[in-house]
Amino acid sequence: MSEFITVSYLTTAKDLYKKAESIAVGMTVGSWTDLPLARQEMLAPYLGKVGNVTITEEKDGLQQGIISIQYPVGNITPDIPSLLTTVFGKLSMDGKIKLVDIDVPPSLLAQFPGPKFGIAGIRERLGVHDRPLLMSIFKSCLGLPLDELEAQFAAQVEGGVDLVKDDEIFFVDDKAPLAERLGAYNRIIEASGRPVLYAANLTGPVHQLVDKAKYAIDQGATCLLLNVLPYGFDILHRLAADPDINVPLMAHPAMAGAFYAADEYGISSPLLLGKLMRLAGADMILYPSPYGSVALNHTEALTVAEHARVSNGAHKPAFPVPSAGIHPGLVTQLYQDFGTDVIVNAGGGVHGHPNGAADGARAFRAAIDAVVKGQTLTKGAQTSKPLALALEKWGGA
Amino acid sequence: MSEFITVSYLTTAKDLYKKAESIAVGMTVGSWTDLPLARQEMLAPYLGKVGNVTITEEKDGLQQGIISIQYPVGNITPDIPSLLTTVFGKLSMDGKIKLVDIDVPPSLLAQFPGPKFGIAGIRERLGVHDRPLLMSIFKSCLGLPLDELEAQFAAQVEGGVDLVKDDEIFFVDDKAPLAERLGAYNRIIEASGRPVLYAANLTGPVHQLVDKAKYAIDQGATCLLLNVLPYGFDILHRLAADPDINVPLMAHPAMAGAFYAADEYGISSPLLLGKLMRLAGADMILYPSPYGSVALNHTEALTVAEHARVSNGAHKPAFPVPSAGIHPGLVTQLYQDFGTDVIVNAGGGVHGHPNGAADGARAFRAAIDAVVKGQTLTKGAQTSKPLALALEKWGGA
Repeated sequence: MSEFITVSYLTTAKDLYKKAESIAVGMTVGSWTDLPLARQEMLAPYLGKVGNVTITEEKDGLQQGIISIQYPVGNITPDIPSLLTTVFGKLSMDGKIKLVDIDVPPSLLAQFPGPKFGIAGIRERLGVHDRPLLMSIFKSCLGLPLDELEAQFAAQVEGGVDLVKDDEIFFVDDKAPLAERLGAYNRIIEASGRPVLYAANLTGPVHQLVDKAKYAIDQGATCLLLNVLPYGFDILHRLAADPDINVPLMAHPAMAGAFYAADEYGISSPLLLGKLMRLAGADMILYPSPYGSVALNHTEALTVAEHARVSNGAHKPAFPVPSAGIHPGLVTQLYQDFGTDVIVNAGGGVHGHPNGAADGARAFRAAIDAVVKGQTLTKGAQTSKPLALALEKWGGA
Repeated sequence: MSEFITVSYLTTAKDLYKKAESIAVGMTVGSWTDLPLARQEMLAPYLGKVGNVTITEEKDGLQQGIISIQYPVGNITPDIPSLLTTVFGKLSMDGKIKLVDIDVPPSLLAQFPGPKFGIAGIRERLGVHDRPLLMSIFKSCLGLPLDELEAQFAAQVEGGVDLVKDDEIFFVDDKAPLAERLGAYNRIIEASGRPVLYAANLTGPVHQLVDKAKYAIDQGATCLLLNVLPYGFDILHRLAADPDINVPLMAHPAMAGAFYAADEYGISSPLLLGKLMRLAGADMILYPSPYGSVALNHTEALTVAEHARVSNGAHKPAFPVPSAGIHPGLVTQLYQDFGTDVIVNAGGGVHGHPNGAADGARAFRAAIDAVVKGQTLTKGAQTSKPLALALEKWGGA
């Protein structure tokens, strides 16, 4: 019995069923009905099949709806470039069509690395098991000398964050080269007496990134940040699959909007940021929260988290990191929406605190502690002056 | 004097100028007006500037138009992941916004490889200087044993094509492994007594693709095909920049529609397929022709070709390969639109010929010869039975 990858598309055509049939043949064996019988027998294992076709709207002689196509697992090699080229290579250019979902059967799933650490592994490293984690972002990185970055880092750690990440646009780091940052930040972490993960931005020629990651680890890196889409999913896969890269990988969604933002084109955010990031090996997945000005809609944001964490029989769950626009007053909502296994990630919400970044982090930690105990933020603010100030500035109760 | 990368976006906002200002600051130094003077002095070289703001429409309190932002060259490392993350990383997720164009100054342009062979280098290898080149695609590759592929290859070469390319979905090649294909096809080419380039699909783990390319060349590869977008632009750059990879690189546009197809999101096709592909080192750029059912609009298709070929002071011109829906009857139009320095690329238009692929290729060659001489196709068909049959089937005169 051959197994299939089930792929669903939102598309528009005069006849959706016919379109589905043309995809099932056109994206696999090329042609079918005109083939001689012997050729059909040879190619049958490679032929795609039409799954469900659901028409949601008919207007002006056009049908819109979801079609699903089944691609034989044997048509692809177990990597994301092969998968995406096969199911959405040429097809992405064929009129109104959005790649909505991909369901990978267990045999293929098992050939992708998935997260090496996942939620449990990261909690283990941090020794934090019973609350959402807190991450902060440098206010900015580009152009700052090491001592200024060290001061930012120290304030964030002092306030109690679990993780700190580089700015994703931090490519030119000549004033604070990677090895020097790692040394300086690790000294600050050590002095704090508490584990903190620092996600260093992994940059450089893509064919050298595996070696660069190992170099970073030699220099003390405890976590790596990657702009997955600008570099391509496959390098995340190769980093995750390498046994010597023994630190968690954090996926940044840079450029993701170019794929998911249009209604009728591109790749859906739950697939792109939830399923594919996890499949390729992200331990933590940053993506737009449903709250800020740079926002994903609420349902999609929850679905990304579901794909990141759901039991899929093969891979560890990854941490969703719904980001942008997060301030302490939003922690109740975040906890309601995402539960305990989430990373609360803030930039302006930490650095913009009236007393600075250390109290900014303290405000978040107090907010997290409150909601985990089932308290209101107002109640939490009674024993946390930083939280009281934050709620005054940003609202929340 | 610092130099700038000028980036233009199509976007919508209440106040386009304010949006431009927030991008210029937000995508570079993060914040500005609230910074102390000493910090402003330190960060001034990294600060983006607002260029032109052109409002094209005002409706319901929203302005739509083109804004241009100037990013200091020193903000990025000379590679496409850094460039795209910097100018469209977070920004891609910030509401309605499409990345329309990027103008790279000469100092930065010179740090990208561009095509190693370009139009002249490929013509040199083929010994063809005075007409559009002809490429054909295998009818299909997936699942076919080597002898069937050899037969397809031989027919195409017999008919007079200059190039043959693998199917871009040809990842699983266990029935006709790369080294065996190269050996078999090269024997056919040698027997023909005429140079023909075979673009073998380069596949595998991205961090090993440079080595895989060298292996392929050792095995006789004369040209390599790459699914640039699924793998990421940077690996094309690294292949092009490697002096030992001494064969032309052909860029396939698989997945490009996910970027360019929406009006208000993503990345424009001229930038994505014209400028960036050439910058990264594609010698030949496949993309949707303006003629077929999988079509780019006419203006965009011509602009892609312009970006591929225009003198930019740093890089060799690349061959545009407007593909899909091409049959011999379209060659007049193709020649009018794209001139001599174009590759006529056909799959169905070769294999679907009433007499098979060899005559399919002959029909194209006759059509090309006719238009170059300023003749009609009807005139060309007087001395080419294959062309006459093709025009009968597909039309054209």
